Parts: sequence; C-alpha cells; structure tokens
Amino acid sequence: MERVLIIGGGAAGMTAASWIRRLAPNMKVTVLESTSMVSHAPCGVPYFLEGLFDDPKLFMTYEPSFFIQKRGIDLRVNAKVREIDVSSRVAKIGDENETVEFDYLIIATGSIPSEIKTDGKDKVFFVHHPAHAEELRKALWSLEKIAVIGGGILGVETSEALVSKGKKVVMIHHGSRPLNRMLDDDMASFISPKIARDLDMRLSESVLEVRNGGRTVITNKGEYKVDGTVVAIGVKPNSSLVKGQLELGIHGSVVVNDKMETSEKGIYAVGDVAQSTNVITGKPDWVPYAPVANKMGFVAAFNVAGLEKKFPGVVGTMITKYKETQVGKVGLTYEEALKTNMKAVEAKVQHKTRARYYPGSKDIWVKLIAEESSGRVLGAQIVGDEEVLGRLDVLALAMMKGLTVEDLFFMENAYLPAVARVWDPIVLAARKIYAGD
Amino acid sequence: MERVLIIGGGAAGMTAASWIRRLAPNMKVTVLESTSMVSHAPCGVPYFLEGLFDDPKLFMTYEPSFFIQKRGIDLRVNAKVREIDVSSRVAKIGDENETVEFDYLIIATGSIPSEIKTDGKDKVFFVHHPAHAEELRKALWSLEKIAVIGGGILGVETSEALVSKGKKVVMIHHGSRPLNRMLDDDMASFISPKIARDLDMRLSESVLEVRNGGRTVITNKGEYKVDGTVVAIGVKPNSSLVKGQLELGIHGSVVVNDKMETSEKGIYAVGDVAQSTNVITGKPDWVPYAPVANKMGFVAAFNVAGLEKKFPGVVGTMITKYKETQVGKVGLTYEEALKTNMKAVEAKVQHKTRARYYPGSKDIWVKLIAEESSGRVLGAQIVGDEEVLGRLDVLALAMMKGLTVEDLFFMENAYLPAVARVWDPIVLAARKIYAGD
Repeated sequence: MERVLIIGGGAAGMTAASWIRRLAPNMKVTVLESTSMVSHAPCGVPYFLEGLFDDPKLFMTYEPSFFIQKRGIDLRVNAKVREIDVSSRVAKIGDENETVEFDYLIIATGSIPSEIKTDGKDKVFFVHHPAHAEELRKALWSLEKIAVIGGGILGVETSEALVSKGKKVVMIHHGSRPLNRMLDDDMASFISPKIARDLDMRLSESVLEVRNGGRTVITNKGEYKVDGTVVAIGVKPNSSLVKGQLELGIHGSVVVNDKMETSEKGIYAVGDVAQSTNVITGKPDWVPYAPVANKMGFVAAFNVAGLEKKFPGVVGTMITKYKETQVGKVGLTYEEALKTNMKAVEAKVQHKTRARYYPGSKDIWVKLIAEESSGRVLGAQIVGDEEVLGRLDVLALAMMKGLTVEDLFFMENAYLPAVARVWDPIVLAARKIYAGD
Repeated sequence: MERVLIIGGGAAGMTAASWIRRLAPNMKVTVLESTSMVSHAPCGVPYFLEGLFDDPKLFMTYEPSFFIQKRGIDLRVNAKVREIDVSSRVAKIGDENETVEFDYLIIATGSIPSEIKTDGKDKVFFVHHPAHAEELRKALWSLEKIAVIGGGILGVETSEALVSKGKKVVMIHHGSRPLNRMLDDDMASFISPKIARDLDMRLSESVLEVRNGGRTVITNKGEYKVDGTVVAIGVKPNSSLVKGQLELGIHGSVVVNDKMETSEKGIYAVGDVAQSTNVITGKPDWVPYAPVANKMGFVAAFNVAGLEKKFPGVVGTMITKYKETQVGKVGLTYEEALKTNMKAVEAKVQHKTRARYYPGSKDIWVKLIAEESSGRVLGAQIVGDEEVLGRLDVLALAMMKGLTVEDLFFMENAYLPAVARVWDPIVLAARKIYAGD
C-alpha cells in the first residue's frame, strides 16, 4: 500500500487528501495538522473579530471527524512536524521523535505572517490562523486604541472590524494609498476617503519598530502610543521545513511544475506554500489565495493518483470590502503593467449598478488594462457597492484564457434593470480600448 | 454626401446612428422613429407598472434633442414609415407621401407583441412599448382581477408588478412550468412555488381565445372571468416593411451576415428585427435582447462607415427576477441540448452565496450543461437570491468563446466571505462534469 503524507490540513491539504482517497482508495493518506483545526478559512478571521459570528467551529468546512470517518483519511491534529527528510522520505513529529514514512509527500504548510521588529510581543497581534481567533478577539476587544500596521487587504479588513467594534484605529501604511497592490491611484481614490472617514489613516509612512511590547509604534515620521498593535504587513510561504532540500522561488515559495510536483520526484507542494506561474506575464508568481490553493490540491491529488491534470497558473484575483464597498482586482495594475515589456493602455468607466429608473442604484467603477498591440486584457480593477464579485470572475476567466477587449465587448452580458444597465461597465471599458470610446 | 437612413430609434438604431456620425462625420444620418421616444428600454415597462418610478422620460437613455443637437443626427420622431422600396432606395413616410432617399439603409424596427384571437380589444393589453406605458398603467391599475396570458419572462415580470399593486392575477401558461424556455424542470422547481404563492398559476393550459373585449379568457381547460387581460405570449420581428424584398429567416427575422448586412448590399438590419447565428449550435437564431441589439447597431455602424467589424453571434443570455429571486439562463437548456445532435451531460449544484459564518447567506442553484465528448459548455441556468448577474456573464463569455468545464473549473474565482464561498457554485458544477464530483 502506497503511503501519501500531507503536511498541513488547510484548504489545499484537505482537498488533496480527499481527492486522493477518492481516486486511489488503495493509497494510505496521512495528514499532519499542527493546530486543532482543518479545512479552515483564515479569510474569516476579520469577520470573527467584527463579531459577526461567535462559533469558531464555523471556520471549518468540515470537522476532523468527518475526514477521518467519512473519507478514511488518517488525519492527526495538533501534530507538528519538526523535520522532513525528503530524500529518505521520513517526517519527524513532535518532541517524541515519532516518525512517519511516506512514498509521496504533499507540502501544504500554508503561509505565515511577516513579522516586524519588536522588543516584546505582549500586545503585538497577528490576524492569521483561525485556531487562534478566539484568543485574539478577546485580547483585541479589551483594548481601546489600536495601531494596525499595513493597509493591504488584511490591514483594511482588520481595521474595519476594529472600527465597527468602536475601537480607535490608527492604520499605518507604507504605500501612498490603501490597497496599493490592488488599485492604481485613480481607482484607490474611490475607496480611500471612505476608510479615512472612520480612522486615522497614515500613508507613505514606514514603521521602523514596535516598542513596549506593542504599545509604541515608531515610524519614519513619528511615534504612536496605543494599547496594542496588529501587524498586517503580509504573509510569506511557510517553507522552512524543506529549505535546502527543495528548490525555492519567490519569497521562498516552493517551486513546482504544472503538476504541482517540486524539484524532487514524488514530492508535491500546494496552496500558499507553492509558487505558480502568472498566466499574463508568463513569469513565476506567488498567490496565497484559497480558491487557488484548493485547485492546486485537486491537481496534486490527480497526479499522485497517477491521473494527469495540469494547473494552468494564476492571474492574481483579489477582492476585499470596506463597509458596503467592494474592491477587486485581477491581473496587473496599470502601474504593474508599465514595469513589463508590454505596451499597455487603460480605460476607466464610472457607472451605476441599476437602470436609471430602478430604485437603489449604486456606484461602480471599472478599469481595464490591455496590451496595446493585441488588445489582450492584462488587468482589471473594480470598486463598487454591489455586483462586483461576478464581474471580477468574468475578468479572471478572460485573463486566464488570454481573451481580448474585443471578446469582452461582445460578451452577451446579462441585463436586468434591477441589477444592471444595458451597457455593462465592463463592456463600456472594453469598448473604450477596442473602439476608442 | 452619402445618406444613411435608419428606421427605428430604439437601442440598436440610435447606437448605429451615433457611431456612424462619429466614424463618418461626412455622412448624413436620418432616423425615423414612429413613436415620440428614442433610445428607449421596453425592459423597464413592468417596473413602471409596479410603480417603482413615475417619469416616463426615464425610459429614454437620451431625449431626442440630445441626438439632434449633440450628435448631429437628423432624428424625426412620430415619423411612421409606410413603405420602403429597397431596390430604388426610397422610404415613404406618413399619409402625405413624403419620401426619404438613401444610399444605406439600417432596419431597426424592433419587435412587436404576438397577438391572440380576440373579439375586441377594449380590455386587452400588451406590455411592450414605453411610449404607451402611461396609458397602459392607468388602465391596468384601475382593474381588480387580471388574466396574464404567458408565463415566460414578460408574463412573470408583469404578474409580479400586478401582484405587488394588489391585483388578483391568474397567469395562464401553455408550458408545464413558468419560464420553460429558460429553465429545465428541476431548476424551475426552485422558483415556481414562489410565484404560485402569490397568484393563480395555471400551467399546461392553452388559451383558445379571449372574449368580451378581454373580460373572458377561454382555455382548453376552462373559462376565466376577469376585468382585463394582458397578452404576454412573446414578440416577433417587426419585419413587414421589407417582407418580399429581403431574405427573411426565423419567425420572419431579417437574414444578415456577420457585418449585419442583409441579402441586399448596403441594406443592414440590427436589433430585434435581425436574425443572428447561435455560437453554440452554429445555427440561425433569433434573440430579441437589448445588449445584443446595441452591439449589432455598433457593428452595422462600422461597416456602413467602411470600417470592418464582425458580430460574433449570440448565446442567448436571459435574466429575470420574481420578487427577490433572480433567474438566468445562457445557451441551451438540457431539454434543448437533447434535441441537438450533441451528446450532453448536466450537473447541478445547490449552494449558498456567502461563507458559512457570514450573516445573510442566500440560496443559489447553478446548473451546467456540457458536451460530453469535449467538455464544451453548452448551457447554464442559475436561480438565486443574489450574485446571479455576474455569474451569468461568466457563463455567457465562456460559451461565446467555446470554453470548457475545465476552463470554468480553473477560473480563478473571486472569493470574499461576505459575498461568496471559496468553492464557487460554477466551479463546483464544472468540477462535477470535469472530474465526476
């Protein structure tokens, strides 16, 4: 009986485990998860902080018993892997030096928060693993004034949660605008003032260090006295277990081919720990994102089971919201496109979400970026108060398949006065590039 | 100076007129519109009946003066064309035998409601042209019990409007389920009970005739005494002006090539009056639908102006709603797919619109139909209480470009707990066909 070891029971790991059991019932599948939670969703932690739900079990799609009993997976929670020896195919667990041997290995160890220089961590917090969400919430709810370091997706979502709980928030961001990896300047201007209304937003300001165990934040522009500090400056691949044994790429993510196989035959990496290829640029990219992680797990499972499937790469879909306003991005921003060797053009449309005569219409802005020579869509940004999600999916699919602004223009878009206008903003933005207006 | 005559000032006609003026400022563009309204939106009439707005001017994207003054179009409203002579390139208007000569003609005469056998029209109503909406609303609001003949999109939307105004409605539909051209039986079961809760829904019942000027409806199963009858059994191409002069196709729609040119050189047809090609079946199709009409007008304009553009065909996107529930379809139903020579498979997913832990989650059902041999997507149906529009657009784009369930599975879908789940229902339905589960 062939033995598959999966390290990490998050989205990617449990997807891989479940599919291997289904495709190759004769394989033994062991999953080692360092926390008590599996198939969990870190994306939900800000909403837990906001108090939108109270039961941490809801973070899990399924509880461990489901995977063990219904899917026949040898799932072990609270099982921290101390060491892996890729060449001799052995993992060591915990302090007792228990070992697990394997024929195939799937590394699904996810990502870990990037840290910042501190003199202690008493009141320094990271919004990351659902397993620690209860403890985190209790701590943050007890504070009054909180510094949030970082104005990317996690920084903005965490700030929103804290503001809605009545906290005084100072959000300190090194970028010149919030969500700067998602939005160009012009698009950020539609969301930035809404955030600034609720909190003390400090832009173009770099944190040098955090002192007093999280009660003082020192930046290049000044000093903030707070009750605690949330560090939300991003995540990095949790690849330390295989460092030196496997080829690593961007930010230390594990290099894989389109079967999710690493530089070592039979060793796979999936989810936030794995590198991928950007479909638009053709270059290596690293996208820690649950829908990507799940599909990587799926692809690895098929290949481990001897059935070939290929992962097509990533386009970098991102979406977040601040209060009622949703913000999305796929592909390259115009700023990013300028750094490639492609000549890019952009078009922006301000629109409404419903027919002129239909009550409740909301604002929506769509920006498209395309390659000038071919019209191929390189990127898109949407800021709007409703109907953002599906439009982003349209753009994600278009970029994944190399479609052009002509293709988007001729999309036979759905039109219902209650939720759309006859000229969809995507179609209008595509038309601006395709036909000059 | 070359003269372009456009008959019909609806979406397709005014789009064509505006683009020709832009692309070829040296051409004279005359538009003859039989009513007082231009660039109007018949799709809004049910919402006007519902009382969601009161100003009929809102039916128009722009008023006539805008097109005349800002766009330099020779637009004549209340100008009914009595006769066209395609070969000698002359149109005759009104009773005075005024003539308009042209070098290019664009027929954009739209569609007209299908009629039913009646002994008088005193209380027989059609929900169609916005120019008659005020009169229609006044008449219908004065009635108590109303028969709506037809359970397609217009029948359902009109019934909703009347029910919400407190009218007693009997909806009589020849099909075995409402919206039967959009939904297979299984999908219709998610919306049908909601409609039946509010009104007397009679299915599989055919109207034989309407008597007493609209006060009695005789069907194959019985007789209904009402205060008035709305006939909503569909529309047909308004092509009588060119019958015998141009080649006609499905339901009498005008046959065009991919430049929107008819069988006669220099004579174009666009919008509801024009036939098109179904991208999925490769066969002629007829899709009266505003987003299609606009793009046909756009394509015709480029070709009239000597700049080639091609219309890629249609996939048959449809969307409507009943109360809070949206219903959409693209491509073929499974029932329709069975009638082609392709072997089709289907998959259905019942899902929720938000993360488990996020409040306010709604139901959504997605059904996909694909060609078994290739995995090419042939059709899709969605019923859901939010986030339906954009998902339909994804499917419309996929079908327009001949994409497969594999492509849909690997779409890097947007995921935000407040408006989505990590496994999108489209991705899950695609996976069922692509990977068997």
